[in-house]
Amino acid sequence: MKVIDLNCDMGESFGAYKLGMDEQVMKHISSANIACGFHAGDPLVMDKTVKMAVESKVGIGAHPGYPDLLGFGRRNMACSPEEIQHYLVYQVSAIKGFCHVHGAKLSHVKPHGALYLDAVENEIIAQAIAKGIMSLDPDLYFVALAGKKGETMRRMGEQLGLKVVYEAFPDRAYTPEGTLVSRKQPGAVISDPDKVAQRALDMANGFVTAVDGTNIELEVQTLCVHGDNPGAVNLVANIRKTLEANDIKVKPMGKV
Amino acid sequence: MKVIDLNCDMGESFGAYKLGMDEQVMKHISSANIACGFHAGDPLVMDKTVKMAVESKVGIGAHPGYPDLLGFGRRNMACSPEEIQHYLVYQVSAIKGFCHVHGAKLSHVKPHGALYLDAVENEIIAQAIAKGIMSLDPDLYFVALAGKKGETMRRMGEQLGLKVVYEAFPDRAYTPEGTLVSRKQPGAVISDPDKVAQRALDMANGFVTAVDGTNIELEVQTLCVHGDNPGAVNLVANIRKTLEANDIKVKPMGKV
Amino acid sequence: MKVIDLNCDMGESFGAYKLGMDEQVMKHISSANIACGFHAGDPLVMDKTVKMAVESKVGIGAHPGYPDLLGFGRRNMACSPEEIQHYLVYQVSAIKGFCHVHGAKLSHVKPHGALYLDAVENEIIAQAIAKGIMSLDPDLYFVALAGKKGETMRRMGEQLGLKVVYEAFPDRAYTPEGTLVSRKQPGAVISDPDKVAQRALDMANGFVTAVDGTNIELEVQTLCVHGDNPGAVNLVANIRKTLEANDIKVKPMGKV
Amino acid sequence: MKVIDLNCDMGESFGAYKLGMDEQVMKHISSANIACGFHAGDPLVMDKTVKMAVESKVGIGAHPGYPDLLGFGRRNMACSPEEIQHYLVYQVSAIKGFCHVHGAKLSHVKPHGALYLDAVENEIIAQAIAKGIMSLDPDLYFVALAGKKGETMRRMGEQLGLKVVYEAFPDRAYTPEGTLVSRKQPGAVISDPDKVAQRALDMANGFVTAVDGTNIELEVQTLCVHGDNPGAVNLVANIRKTLEANDIKVKPMGKV
Repeated sequence: MKVIDLNCDMGESFGAYKLGMDEQVMKHISSANIACGFHAGDPLVMDKTVKMAVESKVGIGAHPGYPDLLGFGRRNMACSPEEIQHYLVYQVSAIKGFCHVHGAKLSHVKPHGALYLDAVENEIIAQAIAKGIMSLDPDLYFVALAGKKGETMRRMGEQLGLKVVYEAFPDRAYTPEGTLVSRKQPGAVISDPDKVAQRALDMANGFVTAVDGTNIELEVQTLCVHGDNPGAVNLVANIRKTLEANDIKVKPMGKV
Repeated sequence: MKVIDLNCDMGESFGAYKLGMDEQVMKHISSANIACGFHAGDPLVMDKTVKMAVESKVGIGAHPGYPDLLGFGRRNMACSPEEIQHYLVYQVSAIKGFCHVHGAKLSHVKPHGALYLDAVENEIIAQAIAKGIMSLDPDLYFVALAGKKGETMRRMGEQLGLKVVYEAFPDRAYTPEGTLVSRKQPGAVISDPDKVAQRALDMANGFVTAVDGTNIELEVQTLCVHGDNPGAVNLVANIRKTLEANDIKVKPMGKV
Repeated sequence: MKVIDLNCDMGESFGAYKLGMDEQVMKHISSANIACGFHAGDPLVMDKTVKMAVESKVGIGAHPGYPDLLGFGRRNMACSPEEIQHYLVYQVSAIKGFCHVHGAKLSHVKPHGALYLDAVENEIIAQAIAKGIMSLDPDLYFVALAGKKGETMRRMGEQLGLKVVYEAFPDRAYTPEGTLVSRKQPGAVISDPDKVAQRALDMANGFVTAVDGTNIELEVQTLCVHGDNPGAVNLVANIRKTLEANDIKVKPMGKV
Repeated sequence: MKVIDLNCDMGESFGAYKLGMDEQVMKHISSANIACGFHAGDPLVMDKTVKMAVESKVGIGAHPGYPDLLGFGRRNMACSPEEIQHYLVYQVSAIKGFCHVHGAKLSHVKPHGALYLDAVENEIIAQAIAKGIMSLDPDLYFVALAGKKGETMRRMGEQLGLKVVYEAFPDRAYTPEGTLVSRKQPGAVISDPDKVAQRALDMANGFVTAVDGTNIELEVQTLCVHGDNPGAVNLVANIRKTLEANDIKVKPMGKV
């Protein structure tokens, strides 16, 4: 029986500010990437989100980002590799602490927003992230982009001895080369729930249909889904239903 | 042979801002209380300070504070007990992570500034701090004020099962009741190096001379010293020399 | 013809975080208190909110708070009078700048959350706020609590020569002494839309019915309303309709 | 008689953190660029620094930066033009407020660190800065890099109608093309006080000696000097003495 992980960014609220339908989407996913207080999240939100993930038997990951709450970690910042490495140690340790408090084990690390994108483009940054993770715990899974564009990030993780998990996006269009179509292009984001669910199923089966109609191979262990709004939550419920109806088991990453 | 600990606040620099003569004072102390990024400190500073403490064989403690960098954690903030508890978990976990990276074990937690003062005055706050520490690691020493005024703080720590370490201030005047003379009073701070060293020695021997000239008993396991400026560093060097010349061994707290 | 002002806190979003139904409630009010980036708000939000207020011909006020984004300015902070005075200058100047950019004049200042509550209780704080406002512009209206409890705040404003505007809360219960019933008491907040509208009308007519059924005099020039959710917006629409149906003109504060 | 301005970054302290010898260097300069709370500075520091500048009859400028206190505004951040424009409005307005409080007029705006460097390289960013300034006050001088590399920045300022002031660096080496030698190159920074003073004098006379020994023309109205440490302050004192000994009058920018 095949398995796949559904991961979702969580714990992005901050103080009086609420973001994301964490409680609703938690039921449908198998891994939660929890913000660590730099681009989003705060200690109360982290505690609450870890607790909720534990109760839902969902794998818990750190979701570290740039120190830019105002920009929600979506703006590239020219941080040095040392800065990035130590920002990782700080953020991952903080969420590890909340896992410990709730009797859980941190399973993975997935960089957020601009930090993720910079890691894809720049091996120095990918390596700094991997170093930070490795220095804390060599058993943490490192979530990296599946497909051609993700090679740098994956290589940097594997070189240091991290277990890399390949991530794909069922609601995003892919080029025939196996890379994401830029969000600036029309059709880059797919919103039809059935199409998205079908693509999730294809990805679990190791391929994706590119924009030119060809099927390309794509090694994938985890699918990124969203919980921002009711439509997104329905999309995830639909993906899970479709996967399970087709004998794909949804499980936290790495637990094969 | 008697033992005493010399603890000093450290790692209070932030980004381009430097504070404290950490390298100079590290040679003379036995425990470092390292800021965790809320009122002072940042991931690079934390990494560097932990590394330095490990190399100097100095005990490492967390020095958590209120989330108030602008006020350096010196302003009371009306946080809820839940907020304080989770701020503790967050900050202590972060510094624990850097200890792990450098192969060290976190030994103690000493609240900073207004958080410390609020814990002395308010048992709800003292308890919230103790809960945060306890939920992470019951082996962490909880540094609390020695003398009458510290009873609330110590009781709250001990009730939860924490090992409480009693702290006194050799450069501060004490009332005959065994409490600190308010900084607003003249003579509250003692600056003469020989007097401070003598008081440190007295404290290591279990007593302090109050402002009225009487000697009062004071149970003390750690003495708070400072490294803000060259004069402060000399004061610490002098304290250590005096202690050792009188057969008091200076050792990290709890390591008896 | 009688006049009254309806004021509402606005511009409390921050970066990716949205708070408040500013566009919906703007149609019904006459004055907007705009957050200035310390407890909420950011430069983009400030610009957008000022622009919207100008287009809606709504009076624009500064809504300064404590530097505590994490606590949304709702936590008392032991700031010095100098700190508070200069925090006022900074925040009020920032929003004044956006007013200038959009060809508008800043009309008033209403402190936010814990800063407002502290000003009610503590004349040193009330005075520090008033000093900050006065140093920038003696024509700015200073919004202060109506009724007995607001006397300190109003006196401090008037002593410095500020024009003080008295504010009441139509959705809050009042004691026979003319002070707000604590939120911790049952019945402190009134949610029935018709009752709230009637109380707004009474207040515009100079009185309020206290919890013991007696009508007490209350000098009021502005009523605080909310725009947090659809129910709140309907409440405001209902208040305005009721006021106008009873020949009370809704106008920005001070424009009599 | 020729005139030149000496400008220096100031007000970069933050809370308990002190940076720069503002009081010492203030005596020797004619313009102060004051940090506005984003990358450095806080309301108390701004108030104190503006007051000191007024007393010293020094021209006052805004020194806005990226919202990155941790990185001291030295890290490029991928902000949108709208973000930059509104960050400018916010910061410049805040410092304008403190000028008003002290009866002074804000004279100029000089972007800080990475924001300055980004403006030099990217006309969209230079234009966003200029728009922010222009929307507040068309009389503010816009400080831009002298020489070939500064053309974009100056053109964007002038296109919008701003009065642009050209800035050069007496302690930096220049290429024969009239651009700064990268700090990564050896010899990029000149530390010999007499050489720096001579270069300041040359610049006031309209030229600079490039690294190849040729004299190149350089239109300059203001020279950037530093006040970080005693050596830097002496350097500035020496520059001023040399300028005045050679009949160059040191005056705030634009006041010819």
